[in-house]
Amino acid sequence: MSGSSFGRLFRVTTFGESHGGGLGAIVEGCPPGLELDLEAIQRDLDRRRPGQSSISTQRKESDRVEILSGLFQGRTTGTAIGLLVRNKDADPRPYEPFKEVYRPSHADYTYEARYGIRNWQGGGRASARETVARVAAGAIAKQVLQSIDDHPVEIVAWVDQVGDITADCDPGGVTPEAVEANIVRCPDPATAKAMETLIKRVRSEGDTVGGCVRCVARSVPAGLGGPVFDKLEADLAKAMLSLPACKGFESGTGFEAARMRGSGHNDPFFNEDGKIATRTNHSGGIQGGISNGMPILIRAAFKPVATIFREQETVDSEGRPTTIKPRGRHDPCPVPRAVPMVEAMVALVLCDHWLRWRGQVADRP
Amino acid sequence: MSGSSFGRLFRVTTFGESHGGGLGAIVEGCPPGLELDLEAIQRDLDRRRPGQSSISTQRKESDRVEILSGLFQGRTTGTAIGLLVRNKDADPRPYEPFKEVYRPSHADYTYEARYGIRNWQGGGRASARETVARVAAGAIAKQVLQSIDDHPVEIVAWVDQVGDITADCDPGGVTPEAVEANIVRCPDPATAKAMETLIKRVRSEGDTVGGCVRCVARSVPAGLGGPVFDKLEADLAKAMLSLPACKGFESGTGFEAARMRGSGHNDPFFNEDGKIATRTNHSGGIQGGISNGMPILIRAAFKPVATIFREQETVDSEGRPTTIKPRGRHDPCPVPRAVPMVEAMVALVLCDHWLRWRGQVADRP
Amino acid sequence: MSGSSFGRLFRVTTFGESHGGGLGAIVEGCPPGLELDLEAIQRDLDRRRPGQSSISTQRKESDRVEILSGLFQGRTTGTAIGLLVRNKDADPRPYEPFKEVYRPSHADYTYEARYGIRNWQGGGRASARETVARVAAGAIAKQVLQSIDDHPVEIVAWVDQVGDITADCDPGGVTPEAVEANIVRCPDPATAKAMETLIKRVRSEGDTVGGCVRCVARSVPAGLGGPVFDKLEADLAKAMLSLPACKGFESGTGFEAARMRGSGHNDPFFNEDGKIATRTNHSGGIQGGISNGMPILIRAAFKPVATIFREQETVDSEGRPTTIKPRGRHDPCPVPRAVPMVEAMVALVLCDHWLRWRGQVADRP
Amino acid sequence: MSGSSFGRLFRVTTFGESHGGGLGAIVEGCPPGLELDLEAIQRDLDRRRPGQSSISTQRKESDRVEILSGLFQGRTTGTAIGLLVRNKDADPRPYEPFKEVYRPSHADYTYEARYGIRNWQGGGRASARETVARVAAGAIAKQVLQSIDDHPVEIVAWVDQVGDITADCDPGGVTPEAVEANIVRCPDPATAKAMETLIKRVRSEGDTVGGCVRCVARSVPAGLGGPVFDKLEADLAKAMLSLPACKGFESGTGFEAARMRGSGHNDPFFNEDGKIATRTNHSGGIQGGISNGMPILIRAAFKPVATIFREQETVDSEGRPTTIKPRGRHDPCPVPRAVPMVEAMVALVLCDHWLRWRGQVADRP
Repeated sequence: MSGSSFGRLFRVTTFGESHGGGLGAIVEGCPPGLELDLEAIQRDLDRRRPGQSSISTQRKESDRVEILSGLFQGRTTGTAIGLLVRNKDADPRPYEPFKEVYRPSHADYTYEARYGIRNWQGGGRASARETVARVAAGAIAKQVLQSIDDHPVEIVAWVDQVGDITADCDPGGVTPEAVEANIVRCPDPATAKAMETLIKRVRSEGDTVGGCVRCVARSVPAGLGGPVFDKLEADLAKAMLSLPACKGFESGTGFEAARMRGSGHNDPFFNEDGKIATRTNHSGGIQGGISNGMPILIRAAFKPVATIFREQETVDSEGRPTTIKPRGRHDPCPVPRAVPMVEAMVALVLCDHWLRWRGQVADRP
Repeated sequence: MSGSSFGRLFRVTTFGESHGGGLGAIVEGCPPGLELDLEAIQRDLDRRRPGQSSISTQRKESDRVEILSGLFQGRTTGTAIGLLVRNKDADPRPYEPFKEVYRPSHADYTYEARYGIRNWQGGGRASARETVARVAAGAIAKQVLQSIDDHPVEIVAWVDQVGDITADCDPGGVTPEAVEANIVRCPDPATAKAMETLIKRVRSEGDTVGGCVRCVARSVPAGLGGPVFDKLEADLAKAMLSLPACKGFESGTGFEAARMRGSGHNDPFFNEDGKIATRTNHSGGIQGGISNGMPILIRAAFKPVATIFREQETVDSEGRPTTIKPRGRHDPCPVPRAVPMVEAMVALVLCDHWLRWRGQVADRP
Repeated sequence: MSGSSFGRLFRVTTFGESHGGGLGAIVEGCPPGLELDLEAIQRDLDRRRPGQSSISTQRKESDRVEILSGLFQGRTTGTAIGLLVRNKDADPRPYEPFKEVYRPSHADYTYEARYGIRNWQGGGRASARETVARVAAGAIAKQVLQSIDDHPVEIVAWVDQVGDITADCDPGGVTPEAVEANIVRCPDPATAKAMETLIKRVRSEGDTVGGCVRCVARSVPAGLGGPVFDKLEADLAKAMLSLPACKGFESGTGFEAARMRGSGHNDPFFNEDGKIATRTNHSGGIQGGISNGMPILIRAAFKPVATIFREQETVDSEGRPTTIKPRGRHDPCPVPRAVPMVEAMVALVLCDHWLRWRGQVADRP
Repeated sequence: MSGSSFGRLFRVTTFGESHGGGLGAIVEGCPPGLELDLEAIQRDLDRRRPGQSSISTQRKESDRVEILSGLFQGRTTGTAIGLLVRNKDADPRPYEPFKEVYRPSHADYTYEARYGIRNWQGGGRASARETVARVAAGAIAKQVLQSIDDHPVEIVAWVDQVGDITADCDPGGVTPEAVEANIVRCPDPATAKAMETLIKRVRSEGDTVGGCVRCVARSVPAGLGGPVFDKLEADLAKAMLSLPACKGFESGTGFEAARMRGSGHNDPFFNEDGKIATRTNHSGGIQGGISNGMPILIRAAFKPVATIFREQETVDSEGRPTTIKPRGRHDPCPVPRAVPMVEAMVALVLCDHWLRWRGQVADRP
């Protein structure tokens, strides 16, 4: 199965495992002549990397990215970009006791069922560490999107919910700075504080907790996406659900839409200084699967991390009942570090659709 | 953009519009030698077709499918299957007044923004009528899945919510017969009655209402799906969000997972008569993006249909403010007819992943 | 396997068999707003259709194409175009005696080996009749290419060789009119006459003969194609070898290049009235897999049609030795009708690469 | 454009340039549990690497491959395999004088035309050095093919022609040992000697010469490939023409088929000890685009290397006439080192089609 590629024209293919020689990506289709801001790529990797705060896993990885090809004198050449990040702080020992036992709600059993073989060191390919490669590729996509004339796309994600605590932020006003102002990545400082407290309490109990990430993409040109399977929302949904631990996706009003009437949900059009806009944005910037120029709004739900330091019922690889009390380094809550992952995936989708749009209709009068 | 194809090995490509010469699909990759039950295909089309009940659009379409190729003496040949359904009851006249006006929350404006041209007759390619082709293709996928040795996959979807009314059905017990026992397609008769009443009331007010569809796939072999982008949940999410009016997707616990602790969410493994199973199924049958043999459980949210018979603010194609009071035939609630669409898309995803699994690991000891 | 699709952005998917209900194609990615010349499409189908001359198969098919979607008021909408051609003169009776016997050098045995089932009526999906769908799709691609500003691409193919008889035409001077001036489709009238005589003689002997088709694409913009696998020549080679009976492909000097020295093969650049051109065109308009603005020159070899009216050694489906003397309608030489097929496939490749180019680098200064 | 990927199920994606940080590949879809012979991979890289003999470029590269992922305790895990080869002996200085001048019949001008930017160091992505990544990936594909039960596929390529000198080897008898017995890689020692002499003479004249490579794949299961675009020959043709300097492709009789009659070309079937075989193999092991169990036979033509040490007419990047006398390290004849590249590409095609076959029809009785 060829499941490590994403996108059609702007396409990323990744490799790498938690404890292998390294992780990386090949980015195909990048427009040529773009001056790449390597520090911006590293910045997103730093937002993703482990050990960055008191509420993330304590594995220490510098996650320095090396660009092996596709760049010449600082500018993209339009040919395949090779990216490499080495593993530094890999330590398989804590996983050794579990190599014959299936950790509940991990991918141990399903990898074994599919492949008949499993790299048990830190989850192998199933580790969230694989997202290093996506975040690096997504950081390039962001720069392509920022270079669109008259439409410098800005993508901002933030933590919207941790357990029962939800933030009520107006998506219009959330800034990258506000998101990065605290380690939870919730732009509402008071809520962030409460979330941090909850995460620390949960961790002290040897437990984990889930959460939600919200994301807005501003200044997206109208016309991206299309019928019938590659609707913009469909590709965004796939992008989110491909992230580790993601269990839900909403676009615009999302599940709330199920409760609504058409008369309350429809977004009236009006002329805003010569530009067609909508009074409300229940559609979340997408209608009929195509962007309408309003901010794109999505939300993703993440389940609690499966590694908990409690004894649990399970079976071994022979199907014999046993118990397990996992070890290993992990996050008590997945969402603070999921923020850059969500942004990266949104960037990959939008960048691909922008190139696809240009391919089909670029010279439309 | 090539957005009318779905799947890798079992691949469907569709065409067709609400008011064109017809709709159809090409199904590639179907295993050869399968005796196709043509009546079963027609049965799913009948569940999808308009005019089937007092709470669906009154457009009259028989939606008879013609199989043009890929079938020989009743069996699939393994080559491309051509499917055709003619439009019979197309009537563009009600749409004529709106050809220069953007109906709120329809795809009128976004199609214009993308393509600079728009088939305004009944929504053109953006009409939910395009799903005829998917449902026919999905009905073939269902038959392939039912033919898997020892794993005859059964896919059942039902209406789970209409507006504020939610059903509380145990997914384990829902049967196709119970779903088809009423026109709402909610297997809980009392709730179905209340939903029907709500839908009729909303329609009488010239309004529409949203809802949710839940779906279970039983007897799915463990091992389908894989890292990192083509996780089974990721492809299911894309499948759902590609459906008209779909705004949300959940797998297993979905958004509820965000509130949970790992200790409550993890599904303990146990040995169930020689087969590895989980005590709970919060994962919804998928772990690490790969099926684990438990029932696959998903849920999709649909916004209220955009066509409401009320005056609304909008602009015309020149951006001038105006008002609109739409006409045309439509459903007051999208979910009863979405049930066979959801089943079809789930079948397409699982069938494709089953063939992909077989391609990579078929001879694994 | 999903082998009935071709192209990435401009993508055609086909279905249909020699004796089924019909043949057709779905064309995805066509730029919107193009006024389609339906007669031009029909013209290419007429050039391909059986029964058109005394040296083609006598099966009578009008091959009228119906456009089912993707066209609105004469212009493309940018959404999937559905094409349908009905079979009219299907007659399976001549094939009935051979349903248990493998005709030598046909696809009978290999289809059986692959699928375990075979539509023996006229070759089923292996019939050259499947090319109806490609030619229709290619005729649309031609029109897209003709619409490129400042680069109206012109594609002309012709018969270059029949058996031992070869034409020596300057590719620069071959016109569509000269090609269509005779039934062989060789623009050199004297050679065409000799070829026609040879074809008729071969047919009178119950035999068939092979040949070659050459093709030029003029006014192709520089910059189409790219590293490393999707070189323009690579996609053209695949396009040609996907045609029935095609056994060889050359680009530019082709096999002759193997005999040459670099000093004789290199094409010197010069400035031709402000435009960079090459003195010779041994490269055939492609360097490093990318078009250089010079005419693209390719050539394809076709083996003799396998249906000969002579007794031949073979085996039946049980592997028992037997003899066979085929019947059925067929061409004594494949190349006169291959001419529009070659043009269609070249058009599909160039159109796809043009859209891909535009997607990646459209706004390059 | 996403042109650095090849294959559908067994899929390779590559990156890297002549003078960048390195080259590599990601191999997706490899069956799990395969014990990888790393030395065999290195052996193929050694056959490809520069500096290996007196008739190859004198650049010194050890081309040691590092496997970064997808391998666990010596066996494939079924997840993405990351491969990396570092550049060691890169020296851009000889290319510096030509950074503003287009070397005739190189990709300098076309890369500039496409991308507007060009890595002039050793040809960048257009360098034949990119084939390092393919050869490494192909070496894995070979091992997968060798592991097929009852059908251990053997792929052997050899030099068939250099300039006017052609070898007349029976493809049935060519062994890998005979091919590797001399530096030309022509299994006929006398012809090899003459070829070597010719290559050295040509080099001493500051010139280069073209040639042909022939390849046989033995023990290929019947049933690989399929209608209509992904015929086995079509994918092989694309594979060959994607190689640097390749200008022609033949399958079976190839261009000779154009001269033949059906009565002479058809391959009679017979029963060879319970297995269906053909008396002749003009079809080259492929009929109707599907393998028939006979040896697959193809041939590829390569033009002379464009770098010649002679003064040539050209233009600079401003279009001004100038002359150029290239420097840099290169091969005087491309075919000796093309042999492992041809084998690798054939292996990639067959491996992909084998998995695709298995996905569609694995459980056919």
